[in-house]
Amino acid sequence: MEVLRNKMPNFAKSLISIMGDKNQYKYLSKIDSPADLRQFAVSELPHVCEELRQDIIEELSINPGHLASSLGVVELTVALHYVYDTPNDRLMWDVGHQAYGHKIITGRRDRFCTNRMLHGLKPFPHPFESEYDTFCCGHASNSISAALGMAVAARLKGEKRHVVAVIGDGALSGGLAFEGINNAASTPNDMLIVLNDNRMSIDRSVGGMGKYLMRLTTNSTYNRIRHKIARKLTDCGVLTDSRRRGLIRFNNSLKSVFSRQHNMFEGMDIRYFGLIDGHDVVELVRVLQVIKDMKGPKLLHVHTKKGKGYAPAEKNATVWHAPGKFDYESGERLTSSDGKPHPPKFQDVFGKTLLELAQRNPKIVGVTPAMPTGCSMNIMMNAMPDRVFDVGIAEGHAVTFSGGMAKDGLMPFCNIYSSFMQRAYDNLIHDAATMRLDMVLCLDRAGLVGEDGPTHHGAFDLAFLRPIPNLTIAAPLDEPELRNLMYTAQLPGKGTFVIRYPRGRGSVVDWQCEFEELPIGKGRKLKDGQGTAVLSLGAIGTEAQKAISIAELRSLNTNPSAPLHIAHYDMRFLKPIDEEMLHEVGKNFSKVVTVEDGVVSGGLGSAVLEFFADNGYDVEVKRIGIPDTFVEHGTVAELRKICHMDAESIAEVLT
Amino acid sequence: MEVLRNKMPNFAKSLISIMGDKNQYKYLSKIDSPADLRQFAVSELPHVCEELRQDIIEELSINPGHLASSLGVVELTVALHYVYDTPNDRLMWDVGHQAYGHKIITGRRDRFCTNRMLHGLKPFPHPFESEYDTFCCGHASNSISAALGMAVAARLKGEKRHVVAVIGDGALSGGLAFEGINNAASTPNDMLIVLNDNRMSIDRSVGGMGKYLMRLTTNSTYNRIRHKIARKLTDCGVLTDSRRRGLIRFNNSLKSVFSRQHNMFEGMDIRYFGLIDGHDVVELVRVLQVIKDMKGPKLLHVHTKKGKGYAPAEKNATVWHAPGKFDYESGERLTSSDGKPHPPKFQDVFGKTLLELAQRNPKIVGVTPAMPTGCSMNIMMNAMPDRVFDVGIAEGHAVTFSGGMAKDGLMPFCNIYSSFMQRAYDNLIHDAATMRLDMVLCLDRAGLVGEDGPTHHGAFDLAFLRPIPNLTIAAPLDEPELRNLMYTAQLPGKGTFVIRYPRGRGSVVDWQCEFEELPIGKGRKLKDGQGTAVLSLGAIGTEAQKAISIAELRSLNTNPSAPLHIAHYDMRFLKPIDEEMLHEVGKNFSKVVTVEDGVVSGGLGSAVLEFFADNGYDVEVKRIGIPDTFVEHGTVAELRKICHMDAESIAEVLT
Repeated sequence: MEVLRNKMPNFAKSLISIMGDKNQYKYLSKIDSPADLRQFAVSELPHVCEELRQDIIEELSINPGHLASSLGVVELTVALHYVYDTPNDRLMWDVGHQAYGHKIITGRRDRFCTNRMLHGLKPFPHPFESEYDTFCCGHASNSISAALGMAVAARLKGEKRHVVAVIGDGALSGGLAFEGINNAASTPNDMLIVLNDNRMSIDRSVGGMGKYLMRLTTNSTYNRIRHKIARKLTDCGVLTDSRRRGLIRFNNSLKSVFSRQHNMFEGMDIRYFGLIDGHDVVELVRVLQVIKDMKGPKLLHVHTKKGKGYAPAEKNATVWHAPGKFDYESGERLTSSDGKPHPPKFQDVFGKTLLELAQRNPKIVGVTPAMPTGCSMNIMMNAMPDRVFDVGIAEGHAVTFSGGMAKDGLMPFCNIYSSFMQRAYDNLIHDAATMRLDMVLCLDRAGLVGEDGPTHHGAFDLAFLRPIPNLTIAAPLDEPELRNLMYTAQLPGKGTFVIRYPRGRGSVVDWQCEFEELPIGKGRKLKDGQGTAVLSLGAIGTEAQKAISIAELRSLNTNPSAPLHIAHYDMRFLKPIDEEMLHEVGKNFSKVVTVEDGVVSGGLGSAVLEFFADNGYDVEVKRIGIPDTFVEHGTVAELRKICHMDAESIAEVLT
Repeated sequence: MEVLRNKMPNFAKSLISIMGDKNQYKYLSKIDSPADLRQFAVSELPHVCEELRQDIIEELSINPGHLASSLGVVELTVALHYVYDTPNDRLMWDVGHQAYGHKIITGRRDRFCTNRMLHGLKPFPHPFESEYDTFCCGHASNSISAALGMAVAARLKGEKRHVVAVIGDGALSGGLAFEGINNAASTPNDMLIVLNDNRMSIDRSVGGMGKYLMRLTTNSTYNRIRHKIARKLTDCGVLTDSRRRGLIRFNNSLKSVFSRQHNMFEGMDIRYFGLIDGHDVVELVRVLQVIKDMKGPKLLHVHTKKGKGYAPAEKNATVWHAPGKFDYESGERLTSSDGKPHPPKFQDVFGKTLLELAQRNPKIVGVTPAMPTGCSMNIMMNAMPDRVFDVGIAEGHAVTFSGGMAKDGLMPFCNIYSSFMQRAYDNLIHDAATMRLDMVLCLDRAGLVGEDGPTHHGAFDLAFLRPIPNLTIAAPLDEPELRNLMYTAQLPGKGTFVIRYPRGRGSVVDWQCEFEELPIGKGRKLKDGQGTAVLSLGAIGTEAQKAISIAELRSLNTNPSAPLHIAHYDMRFLKPIDEEMLHEVGKNFSKVVTVEDGVVSGGLGSAVLEFFADNGYDVEVKRIGIPDTFVEHGTVAELRKICHMDAESIAEVLT
């Protein structure tokens, strides 16, 4: 641990000292790695779980993060690290926000108070941080595919190791998970898939697979008999290792007979075990030990409760998915309010505007891949449940399904987080743009998102969308512009219309303007100037505005005889780009600075360069945007500074 | 029909006349639309099928296309259009290459001889061509999602119509299909999914779902009883409409009891009917009529044979998937050979080189999403079956699975067609690039592909790959360069390495060079020059070479005193781009022409503009590439001309 401590930045060390003495924990304080955990007797594990759970709650009450899902897998985490020889055995978490317990018992307890902070622990497990983190796991549904790869690698290289993927029922609705299962069924491997079934993704789970799993587990005859037999045999002490194995197989066939549910997993040659109580750590350890060395692919179906062990989180796991700071004792969520009116979040503007538009236009429907609360589509969902479709973690389907509805005359608003849109790229091209379908794609969380880090930054969308023919791509500077873009997009004949906007608050308190149709492919001049023009796209334009003020003020001080007078254009549309405006800029300015909240290669800056080259303008162009690297986690303000996208850095380019 | 004829280009009319009198067909000649088809008695449908099948074979023997899959669905096509009121009812084909019969009986019989030709019928159904084509269907697995969208639209708009999706068992392995089923199970709809089970995609189907379907259908007890009962009841004439309905439900529950296979579809609340012989058109019509008006989502499982009715195609459906021209009578495939040695196809170079490398480097494994024959990975597959993984139509999984193997020390070569790579975009970012995994992604069919048209052109890859951090992106000019790039990519520590190359032949007959490591991010000067430099990326460089010759020769004639002397650089790498070379070019040339076989926005041209802007070079840059539109189908030569990417057009820019 000391080595790790020495590598830490000073601020993290001071945080650690603020957090006080972690040795209050009798068991946890002895666990610096899973090897230490394995020194305990099985009977001690419930105490370990209790302490681990308490530690997670305490830490997160001060340093916000993903609470409910991590509480749900405390016992699973302890049992898996207890039974499997990690890190030699590979343990892969599907969506790493459930992996806080995993981090704490794999040598990162001291640093856990830096979780999600700049230069602190990464928001999701990542192999660059720990050898216990086997794979990148920011996006759902990739665990089975990756774990199968590891299992095959072990087999081909003759290395003896177990491979375990832990996937939630929510992540199981993703097509990638199905592709993984489909392939795992026909590729020789001994992988274990732990299906962590809590009936939730972030919001409640949806879809046929959920129904199927529910039926697989709720047959009361079966459950009654299973429990009776299991308890009896345990009580009598007749459960030797080999008998346990037999019992589990017996459970399994019992299930087939009594529930009359033939199991699709078994039909695919994946052995099915379950259902197990995911909060009974002793039982979990027992079962895992029995099935650990069985050959062939296996699936263990575990039932857990999101938020388990913390009453407020158990009651409302969606709110407590990532609750922010809260009071440990009272369970009250703490919000900092200065009493002043603030600009609304773009998410709220989206949600409320969507409902307003849907009330006027009966063709409007909403589509969300498992994010109704996050993107605020729940506002329309509550008011018009028949016209909003939560399709599960299934971004590709969300877009193609929207395409089908658009083809037959509805007007879908499909809302997907920018970084998750990477999963529906072909769908947008093939199932929307090729047919010029009238539909609206709203990309939430575009640009730098902050603490969720590199897998969640909406960095690439402008660059990967711009090459697609027939698309309209827009980004609002502020809340009224978002409203008006949404209004414009749903008017007839506008084609496939993308609107991207960032996470969090905008800049206009009084946002509920009358709707106004915006001309497609037209920007607006925000400010006159000479010599230098700033062309910005989207909400980062407010940062550009500040930068212009800084630069002009500074020049007034240093060079009062010829102060800078910088023009500012809000491009509003990346595609079609405002050619008239660019001609004006090309003719009248010698220097242009482009500012965008996206990668600097391929987006607005490149589009401007292309236009100037194609039209023979000789203008010096400086491009400001996200650099060609996976930007780490931290607050948005910190990250903008690092990327030289904050007002101060932009001002330097302007002077 | 006359109206359509008048809209046709003259060459197509002359083709139509060459094809001779289509009125040889007693039934087919009377079918100008499905409404005509519906005039026939059910008993006449087998004759219609016979003629339709013969027509497809004849047409394709002269004008090549996708034979085997279209032959497999002749009866299904006729039955669906007979029972359903198309185009008001929506019929959606999953992968449109099976839809030739559909085209012929929906008013395009006369023009079918122009199928896949420039300005002729589109290669895949598309709503811009016919109201019977409900959705774009070039990429597999999208039918259920799109059809669900249509079903929901009909319900919300109060329009009475049926919606049918026809999906093959191969396409069912795609995650998108699963996402669609998952959502269909929990969204109110009356859709019918026809599962066309032929145990094939282009190559043989693979994966757990295939096993599952097989088990669902092969229980002999069940099949014996089902057939006996069905025949008996039909013979006795007791099958009234209501009884038929009962019988089908009886079949279904019989299946459950006898096969002890509880059905996953039924477990998801999708009613399952089957298995039906897909070549018994009378039976198909009967069953479809019975289930047509049943409420809720339904799945009809149909067994067909790819290539049905044409013996050579039945024998080897993979070869006859798209066989080229052939002799109708003998079944001999016609190849035009002038006896001269030709440069090999890039595909063959890939396949043979991969095996060579795998023989030297035991870490190399191959991964293909259902395209072992198309990309020539079958060469390694035959030699080393344990080290090649055909994962089914599952591009996302192919990349993530490769990532898992790479993480644990194997060296995967994952080969995906460029346009299908659009489906694995997030996987490449999240499951490879973020971790800088050592693996190789080979993008086959990059650039314009010809007759398969807009959904299959590998147009976007350069633009969507370039913004991804940590990637190396290369494109070989010719066969030896492909070999050496493959060799270089598998050396240790090269990170995530993309190699993209086109469909078809290269330019070097003697391609089997010794392996040579190529320096990463370094291009090469092919030819000296002054004033103007051409920077090309990939095999289209040969077109640029020709263009330079044309332009220089022309200038020698028109301006012998100061002929053009044009430099040519083969960039070889898009990323990292050769900065040293670009500095040289920026310093020494006043005009630069970039040539790439990809969209003109975001790829090489943009990278060069960005470099010159960032480094203050004042150079006139002309970018040549695929324009911002979905380029239609035709031969590659025709399309290059249209896109001004052929040697002649490039020469014009140079002069």
